[in-house]
Amino acid sequence: MASSAACCDLILFGSCGDLARRKLLPALYQLEKAGLLHSDTRIIGVARESLSLAEYRAKVGEDLRQLLTRETLDESVWQRFEKKLSYCEIELSDLDQYEALTEWVDTSGASEHERTPICYFATPPHLFATLCKGLHSVGLTREPTRVVLEKPLGQDLASSQKINRQVAEYFHESQVYRIDHYLGKETVLNLLALRFANSIFSDQWSHSTIDHIQITAAEQVGVEGRWSYYDDAGQLRDMVQNHLLQVLSLIAMEPPTRLDTESIREEKLKVLRSLRPIDRDNVHDDTVRGQYTAGFVGDHKVPGYLEEEGAATDSTTETFVALKTHIDNWRWSGVPFYLRTGKRMPHKRTEVVITFKRQPHNIFYETQSQLPPNRLIIRLQPDEGVEIQMMNKVPGLGKQMQLKPTTLDLSFYETFENKRIADAYERLLLEAMQGNQYLFVAREEVEHAWRWIDGIRAAWQQLPEGPKTYQAGTWGPTAAVTLMAQDGREWDDED
Amino acid sequence: MASSAACCDLILFGSCGDLARRKLLPALYQLEKAGLLHSDTRIIGVARESLSLAEYRAKVGEDLRQLLTRETLDESVWQRFEKKLSYCEIELSDLDQYEALTEWVDTSGASEHERTPICYFATPPHLFATLCKGLHSVGLTREPTRVVLEKPLGQDLASSQKINRQVAEYFHESQVYRIDHYLGKETVLNLLALRFANSIFSDQWSHSTIDHIQITAAEQVGVEGRWSYYDDAGQLRDMVQNHLLQVLSLIAMEPPTRLDTESIREEKLKVLRSLRPIDRDNVHDDTVRGQYTAGFVGDHKVPGYLEEEGAATDSTTETFVALKTHIDNWRWSGVPFYLRTGKRMPHKRTEVVITFKRQPHNIFYETQSQLPPNRLIIRLQPDEGVEIQMMNKVPGLGKQMQLKPTTLDLSFYETFENKRIADAYERLLLEAMQGNQYLFVAREEVEHAWRWIDGIRAAWQQLPEGPKTYQAGTWGPTAAVTLMAQDGREWDDED
Repeated sequence: MASSAACCDLILFGSCGDLARRKLLPALYQLEKAGLLHSDTRIIGVARESLSLAEYRAKVGEDLRQLLTRETLDESVWQRFEKKLSYCEIELSDLDQYEALTEWVDTSGASEHERTPICYFATPPHLFATLCKGLHSVGLTREPTRVVLEKPLGQDLASSQKINRQVAEYFHESQVYRIDHYLGKETVLNLLALRFANSIFSDQWSHSTIDHIQITAAEQVGVEGRWSYYDDAGQLRDMVQNHLLQVLSLIAMEPPTRLDTESIREEKLKVLRSLRPIDRDNVHDDTVRGQYTAGFVGDHKVPGYLEEEGAATDSTTETFVALKTHIDNWRWSGVPFYLRTGKRMPHKRTEVVITFKRQPHNIFYETQSQLPPNRLIIRLQPDEGVEIQMMNKVPGLGKQMQLKPTTLDLSFYETFENKRIADAYERLLLEAMQGNQYLFVAREEVEHAWRWIDGIRAAWQQLPEGPKTYQAGTWGPTAAVTLMAQDGREWDDED
Repeated sequence: MASSAACCDLILFGSCGDLARRKLLPALYQLEKAGLLHSDTRIIGVARESLSLAEYRAKVGEDLRQLLTRETLDESVWQRFEKKLSYCEIELSDLDQYEALTEWVDTSGASEHERTPICYFATPPHLFATLCKGLHSVGLTREPTRVVLEKPLGQDLASSQKINRQVAEYFHESQVYRIDHYLGKETVLNLLALRFANSIFSDQWSHSTIDHIQITAAEQVGVEGRWSYYDDAGQLRDMVQNHLLQVLSLIAMEPPTRLDTESIREEKLKVLRSLRPIDRDNVHDDTVRGQYTAGFVGDHKVPGYLEEEGAATDSTTETFVALKTHIDNWRWSGVPFYLRTGKRMPHKRTEVVITFKRQPHNIFYETQSQLPPNRLIIRLQPDEGVEIQMMNKVPGLGKQMQLKPTTLDLSFYETFENKRIADAYERLLLEAMQGNQYLFVAREEVEHAWRWIDGIRAAWQQLPEGPKTYQAGTWGPTAAVTLMAQDGREWDDED
């Protein structure tokens, strides 16, 4: 079923950084365990740290032992995996040092039948230009080399264009794999199956049957010691520009002609292009910014955003944003999309809620004064799953029909013998090794998303007021509730 | 939730017969057990057998002990129930004997606040006229008396009209409760909830999304020692005229304005009126008759229909019928309804299968050459339930999307803590005691159904050939497969 990847040289730039240690190497270990890495594939960690090969391998092993949460390290898998690990010490800002790569990597311009170099830039984006130059100097930008880029791809349209342009000087767009790890989630793919393999959903996926769509990405964490980094970005740029708009575009896109990169990107791009701009005319009504104050998340007392370590006390950066937008095309005419994301929320939860229209008439009014609408819930975090909320008759006798809202698991993961759900990075690494771009973000998508986000930020700057406060551990400022309530709707916040 | 019935005098005519013993008294016992019988309600068995009250009660107790299959008799319930039982010996054909009823029954013409007489005719229909006269003679036809009629209500339109006319001489239509026990099934009511409380279904319930609908009522049994009785009827009259057309009309009806008797009957009647007639022009193409020959049902060798005890060897009565029809209205234009019922089938199974249209385009062709259509399955026997067949992604990694058809339980009975599903007769008896007619069949419905059935029988008589044979333990003559196959469809026979 799962096919193993082609033989690759996977070069991890920033291999001692957090992302590589916490996400990429555990994901690669899982691929090894699942037999999905080609036996001759090599993984070359690159960083400035001075480490022998043995030291690097020991360090990776130590990290894995510590980071694998639901299982212990399988020693026989580790032995196979360890042999694939190499290490190459490079000070990335020094172009002269890239020559060292040729010791470890096949730079011969391999054909598809040999090893494909995959350069994974798990570094801050200001290094991307230098990395490209360095790789070019040792012949590692030629086809079939691929480059994988981590976010953030810029802070606005201009900086994002700059990064994309720099990379494009050395790599063709077909070589570039921009990561948005939300796209690697099992449930996102399952959504494609639900939408396009089942007429009961595909026939209903439009304004004629859907009332509105809400997308929530709630975090419990605060800034996690990265105050000044976060303060430069804020929640709109950190979460909406990438994750939320990517999910939105998959939910809202027209059925693609084929399940390939070109068709899917085309449809996603059309959605991003159709997003109704938020400007100074509607920014006040259609957006809510928030900034958390001290409060309780679970049982823990947590400080306010302006009291975090390293905080500037006059920051007006938003840690919460809620907004209403429309997709101005035929399918979604009149269907609002409500987006919401924030730090220090009551729960960690990422979900899409598709609320269908209410029944126009209620014949069960004697027992059920109002029929709740059907809802399809696509949950990405903390547990992936797809559910539908329906009304059902309560079994039993009685003069009147007793109804009850019931939640139905559409993801069937249990049906599949509780198969382990792969982490998003496992899927994305595998897809990159297989040369399959459809779960990666196109340059045009990134730039269209920034254009829309920049419009919101510009409009915010013209508002007299800054973000509203909300207590940590709540669902944001009350204005976020009002945003929905004024349309007669509400966020799906139960539990 | 369940409300107990008003105080009644339930008079069971034919109380020593099979139906009363096997179905009605066990159902009444269950209602007692569930606390749904009014404490002052009386149950008066009426039959010609000479039994003392003690003997009758003992006999009912014995029957219950023997017939309760999934449980043992609860002695404390039985003690309460037994006290409700009376017995009245009447030779039903002798009008002079009905006076005896006045000893047991409140014939005062009680108002709604007192005991309501309910006369249950669990007798052959040729007695109905006499029963009515007898009841009339003792004042037991006046409002609020109700009369419950068991099938068969005639053998054709003329005989059915005669029965209805005879009953109507004494009872107003609002007093008449015609039983079709399929209407008492939990799943049939759940279907109403699914259809009318969930926009995801109500919006899809038409020719625009549904490809076809099939209704199967397969029995494993043969004629069960009642050859000549059955031979007078045949499968079309025994099963299609009542059960299958009732289920069809609930499935196909327009949403009723209210959940009341008048609205529901109106919509069901409109369906029956819109059934496209089967006449000599289309009878050959659109119907298949079968008669079973010897074969194996399960591991048992069983004789052919013409070899059954008491069989006339030249009978051309059908023991199987399959037919295709259309409902000529706006909703169902172009959607064929396939009906099938037979004796000596491989399994006992009654189900409605709603097959949605296929996806117009398949983007998963690389892993799934053809996408199976979504199917909604409403199962009435042997186990009640509602399921949907969908396509889902198989969790896991891999270049291509692996899909798998998965079956989803929509009936949620598990959600409701495995509540016991009430037998159809429990519900129907309770509804009759509550004066609620919406699960009973209107006179006009019966007569419209007969009109349509008579047309088929008349057309059959003009065909040169009789029923085709099929081996017991198969799904009927191969022509039944062809009936679907020539339309590019197939029966849902997997299991």
